Parts: sequence; structure tokens; C-alpha cells
Amino acid sequence: MALSFEVAAASQSGGRRGALHLPHGTVQTPVFMPVGTAATVKAVPQDTLEQIGADGAGAEMILANTYHLYLRPGHELIRRMGGLHRFMSWSRPMLTDSGGFQVFSLAKLRKITTDGVEFRSHLDGSSHFFSPEHSMEVQIALGADVMMAFDECVETPATWQRTRDSMSLTHAWAARSKQYFEAHKHEVPWAQPVPHPSQLYRDGWDADNFAGRTQCLFGIVQGGMYPDLRRESAERLVEMDFDGYAIGGLAVGEPPEVTREMIARTLEFLPKDKPRYVMGVGYPDQIAEYARMGVDMMDCVLPTRAARHGLLFRAVEPGELQPVKDAIGEEESPGESWTGESSATPSTIRMNIKRVEYAEDQRPIDPACACPVCQRYTRAYLRHLFMSREPLGATLNSIHNLAFYLDTMERVRKELAGL
Amino acid sequence: MALSFEVAAASQSGGRRGALHLPHGTVQTPVFMPVGTAATVKAVPQDTLEQIGADGAGAEMILANTYHLYLRPGHELIRRMGGLHRFMSWSRPMLTDSGGFQVFSLAKLRKITTDGVEFRSHLDGSSHFFSPEHSMEVQIALGADVMMAFDECVETPATWQRTRDSMSLTHAWAARSKQYFEAHKHEVPWAQPVPHPSQLYRDGWDADNFAGRTQCLFGIVQGGMYPDLRRESAERLVEMDFDGYAIGGLAVGEPPEVTREMIARTLEFLPKDKPRYVMGVGYPDQIAEYARMGVDMMDCVLPTRAARHGLLFRAVEPGELQPVKDAIGEEESPGESWTGESSATPSTIRMNIKRVEYAEDQRPIDPACACPVCQRYTRAYLRHLFMSREPLGATLNSIHNLAFYLDTMERVRKELAGL
Repeated sequence: MALSFEVAAASQSGGRRGALHLPHGTVQTPVFMPVGTAATVKAVPQDTLEQIGADGAGAEMILANTYHLYLRPGHELIRRMGGLHRFMSWSRPMLTDSGGFQVFSLAKLRKITTDGVEFRSHLDGSSHFFSPEHSMEVQIALGADVMMAFDECVETPATWQRTRDSMSLTHAWAARSKQYFEAHKHEVPWAQPVPHPSQLYRDGWDADNFAGRTQCLFGIVQGGMYPDLRRESAERLVEMDFDGYAIGGLAVGEPPEVTREMIARTLEFLPKDKPRYVMGVGYPDQIAEYARMGVDMMDCVLPTRAARHGLLFRAVEPGELQPVKDAIGEEESPGESWTGESSATPSTIRMNIKRVEYAEDQRPIDPACACPVCQRYTRAYLRHLFMSREPLGATLNSIHNLAFYLDTMERVRKELAGL
Repeated sequence: MALSFEVAAASQSGGRRGALHLPHGTVQTPVFMPVGTAATVKAVPQDTLEQIGADGAGAEMILANTYHLYLRPGHELIRRMGGLHRFMSWSRPMLTDSGGFQVFSLAKLRKITTDGVEFRSHLDGSSHFFSPEHSMEVQIALGADVMMAFDECVETPATWQRTRDSMSLTHAWAARSKQYFEAHKHEVPWAQPVPHPSQLYRDGWDADNFAGRTQCLFGIVQGGMYPDLRRESAERLVEMDFDGYAIGGLAVGEPPEVTREMIARTLEFLPKDKPRYVMGVGYPDQIAEYARMGVDMMDCVLPTRAARHGLLFRAVEPGELQPVKDAIGEEESPGESWTGESSATPSTIRMNIKRVEYAEDQRPIDPACACPVCQRYTRAYLRHLFMSREPLGATLNSIHNLAFYLDTMERVRKELAGL
């Protein structure tokens, strides 16, 4: 069995409170997954990640990037180490992306054929080739609970015809991904006896505990900003019968209204009994909004990347005026994977900790936040760490932002459960 | 009362097992103090520092650098925040250096007169002046439990006459330091009511709890590599009656035999009933050796700086051959404050985690170490983090090395207590 998914409660607007049972544990949905690009959620130790946010439940599932880990340290090394969970000492569920997005956004000199993509590493310029089959091989070696079909990511903006051609290639690759996966899924490292187990293996990591369990594979809906293509893509993928469905190719520069519209128009055509995942979103208000619309899984680099740039999220305080967009201290340019600002009334304020107004501010980042950073450190101290480029600044900022995201999702889960 | 110091047991070789009672708590001696240059032990959260090493007692006392904090964020800001303890949320004892060593090693365009030192900031080139009185003013604003008299640090090597002239200036400055300190020690911020206390103030941080307590001031013995000058310096400082005595100007490039000889020749002339502190040393075998000779306090950037360069300390395993110096993988050039290698038979091995032999090594750094890094992560994973320049690598490496140092000192304490 790969996964089972139960929906315990659903709202009028389509939001679902559920539970996703995976080989490495059960995940309460809707879930936000912190991104651990290179088998580490940047600057945050694993034990901290297990404890922060969501009433102490911590991050129940994290994501790692196939492209990065394939290049360094290499998927065969990770396979020999017993898979990604054991390699990084993370015993909870994980998801790997297909590598497609990074090949198209980071690698150099791409050459795309119907067979796959030839590209050069952004690390050392070496040549590599990713096909649907190779992406599956790499993802099976990594051994995340959830794998993603290999997809082409079309540039933005793209014409209807260009988008449709790309989508059709994605569908062909999805079919090939599934075929390879079904033939090889028994090779996942955590289902194999390990010849030289590390003394650091944790309880429950014996291959015996995974008897009969396999990874699962999600398809990725493409179709750009065209509702008719989104529908077509959803229908074709559902015909192929994946374990879950992702909505890809969003938050790539389009206005947030368009992102929301594309999500809504795609969700209509996805089965209600399977998990739905929107990749690479978003701001706290957006992840809450998408969860209320019926999205079960999301991931984003924003909380950790913003943290390293000194951007901290906090709740609007009772009685505090709603912030004006230009007055909330956003000075850093958002990174390539950030989403636009939500058009809904924001309940979240972004603080730029480097601003001089925080130099002697003895309050925590967010007086309503229960995270260990808000329980111990002042804005004045966090500003000092940031201005002094001290590594502890990135760590503490990341811990707070991740806790804020996990808490946001916990609030939505309670709301959807009617609590 | 500034401090009280009890010696509970002493060895034949002069080593002492004691306890140092300071305004922010009691420190078991001999103690190793991690260095928190800019009000942060680089890359390590305060709560981790409170828990690692020494059977879970963690770091009982840490050091911060007066020069760095004077420049950024500024001592007056820290005074307004209630002092360094509250600013960085560290409720245990602290020590600040005098700023002298950094002025002489980091600042540009120094101009020394008998009055003090004019220098330019290494951060922005701005002009500043440090005198003994100003160093005291800054250190009182920072509010560490132990302050250091302002000293001149002579270049190495230096002639006998040059060293004696410098030492005499240090003595004059020591007397001025003490005079200013005695007149102003009641100004320490933690003994003042704070007009706007932070909600993050911890239990026991009320000014009331410090009624009648002040900081204490240590003198610094100089005299370079000349035993007669070391004796003269010790005798002059003891006449001035400081709360404790530091041995400065060592580990600045001289052979380790000379460092040990200078420590031994100075300890003879320091009172047995006051704490003795050797600044800026050393490797694990050295700190153990100096503690056995009768040194009560030490600090060094080595465990954290080495960690950031991927150098990890571990115990020689039972039955393991003693390492040959050239075979232990030291490739990084040691930083300016590192000491030379101990001449004693080493019980410690330095691992360079970037070496390819660790790429698939599933053992912890040190199988005998109880630190959270050795309990959870493999050498293979730590190597991956280092090679990928992931910030978690610096954090985990620093946690292990600090725990190794704190454990080393705990073992020496037990040995000195006859346990």
C-alpha cells in the first residue's frame, strides 16, 4: 500500500480536514511542508523542526529537491545510506519533487526532446540528462514517501499553443513516469535490508516495518494560465490514476488573483477522495486561503528564504490598523519562487527586521506566537544578529517563520474541523 | 559582593576543583568558556548552549567581546536594553574582555599613547579612542559578571625592553582601570530598575535580585615570553588586589612548550585563593593540561571557528593507534587565535569532515560522545552539509565541538575532585 487518505470534514467552500497515511507516518491535512532543498531545511536542526508550530507537533512532512540531491551528494550515495530519511535523520514523511522545475529554472543550456532534458549543472557545468524514467530512478533511490511525475515547466507568459504543446509533453512524461514507477517501486531503499546499518538508525527504521509499503506517485497538472487547458490536463491525469494530484506551474509571476483562479478551476476536476497539492505557494494568507478552497498540501521556500533576508511574519495585533502595502517594510526583492501578495484582507504583517525602528524594541517578533524564538528573544536582539550577519540570525528567523506557517495551517485545520 | 571563590580540592600538580560564585550564578571550575564575540556563540542558539556537554549542565559561563559590541550595536544601546545578559537572553555568568586584544589585532591605524589607543574600526574605518577608563565604562554598560582591566598587547616576538615597556604601560592602565571601576561599579545596568522591562525578562532578572552585587574586575598579567617579566607583572598586579588574575599575551604564535612554561612560571606568583584565567587557549588536550596545572578559567574561539572550517574533535578510540600529526587530516590553516599543537601525547583527534573517506561513513563524529549531534547524525551527512555549504553544517559542527570541550573540562573536574 502506498497511501491512504481520509477526509474527516469538509467546508462549504470545499476545504477539507483530513489525514494522509504514508509509510513514514500520518500527516494531518491540510499540511504545509517546509522545503529542505539539499536534505536540510536551511539553518534549522531536525529536532527543532520536529517541535515548532502546530501546538508542538512540528513539521509533519518536509520536501527535498531531487535535482539538488541528484547533483550533490548523488542519489546512489543516498541509496547506499538507506535513503533520504536515514541519510538526514528525518523519520517523518517526506516528498521529493521531480527535478523538472529546477532543471528548467536553475540548470544551464537545456536541450528538450520528447525523450527528456539534457542540461548542465549549475554547480560545475557538467552534462546530465533527465527523462521521466531517470527522475523516477532518482526519486526511488531517495525514497521519499511521495514522488512526483516528471513534468515540463513552460516559461511565463506562454501562448495557448505553446502551453498546450508543453502540457501534452507533460502528459506523455506522466504516463512514462507511472510505468517506470510501477515496475521499480519495490526497489525503494527503506524496504531493503541494509548490509551495514548505522548505529544511528532510529526505532522503527527496520526494513521489516515497511513490509508491503511502497512510495506513492503524484501526477502534476499543467496548463499555464488557461482554464480550458487546466481542465484538460486534470482530466488526462485522472484517467492515468495517480495516488494524488499536484497543481504545478503556478506562482511563477502571475497576479495572485490568477493563481487563485487557476487553483479553483483545476480543483473542480480533481477527485475528492485523493490528496491535492499546490506546489511552491505562498504567503501565510494565501496558504490559508488555498487550504479553505480544498488544497490539502502546500510547500514553499518563502518562510525560510524570507527569514534569511530578515523578513519576518507576524499576526496583525488586535486593534492594530490593517497595514498599507507600501508601509510594511518590504525592501528586499522577493526571490524567484515567491508568490505575489494576496488580494484578500491580510491578517499577516511582514516585518523587515533590519529597520532602525526595531533597534531597541524589546518585544518578541509576534507577541501572540508560541515559538521558542518569540518566547526568548527580542526584536532588538534579532536586528543586531541580522545587522552583524551572525548565522544565529538566519536560524532564529527561520524557526519563527516556519512556526508561523505551521501555526497558520493548524488554525485552518481546526477551523475546517469545526473546532 | 563581586565574587567568592572556593577551592574544594587540589591536586599535587596544582590543579584545583572549585566553584566561582558570581552575580548570575555559580560556575564549577576549572571552566571552559565558549566565545560569544557579538553577543552570540556563533551559529549556536542559547538554549542549545545551556544543554550541551558536562552531563547536561551546558556552558555555565560564556565570554563576549567588548571591542565588537562597542562598535555594534554599541554599549549604550546594550545598557538601555538592561545589559548584555538581557539583550541576548543569557541568564548565566558572562565575562567581557577589555577590548585591548581586538584593538591591537583587528583595528586599523592604531596610535598608542600613555593615555590610551586611538584606532579605526575594522567595520567602517570610523575613529575611536579606548582608554582604561573608557574600557571600564563600556564593560560596565555591558554588565558581564567578570570584566578585564585594559591592557596593551605587545607584538610577537618582542625584545625584553619592548616587552617590559609595554608591561609597565599595562600596569599603569590596570591601576587606572581599577580606580575607574571602583568609582563606577554601582552603575551596572542589571542593578538598576529598568523603566520599560521587556515581557521576555526571565525569572530572577529583577534588579532586586542583584541588590548589593557588583561586577568584578580581573587584572591581566603580561610580560611576553620572559619569565622574569611574568613574575614582575604578577607581583605588581597582586599588589593592586584584583578579584582574579588573567594570564594574557599567550597563544600568539609561540611553541606550545613556551605557552605551558609561561603559564607555569606565572601561576607560581598568583594567589591560591583567587581564580586564575588563561585567555585564548587552546586545543582540548591543552585546556585539560592547563587545568591540571592550576588554571581555573579558559576561553577560546577554536571549537567554534574550527567547526565552521569543518574541523571536528573526537576522542582517540580504545585500541586506536595514536595519530601521527601529518595523518590526521588537518588541511585548513588555523586562525589567528589558535594555539599550537600540544606536545603531550594527544588523546584527541582532529577530523577534517570534508575528506572523501567520510562521504559514506555512517558513524557519528565520536561514538563516545553524548552530544545531540553524535546521537543523531552521521559523518556522511555532516560531510554533505559542509560540502554543500549548508548553514546547518556550521551549527551542528559547533554544537559537537563545544560539547567536546565542555565534556573535556567536566572529566578534568571529576579527576581533580578524586571521582
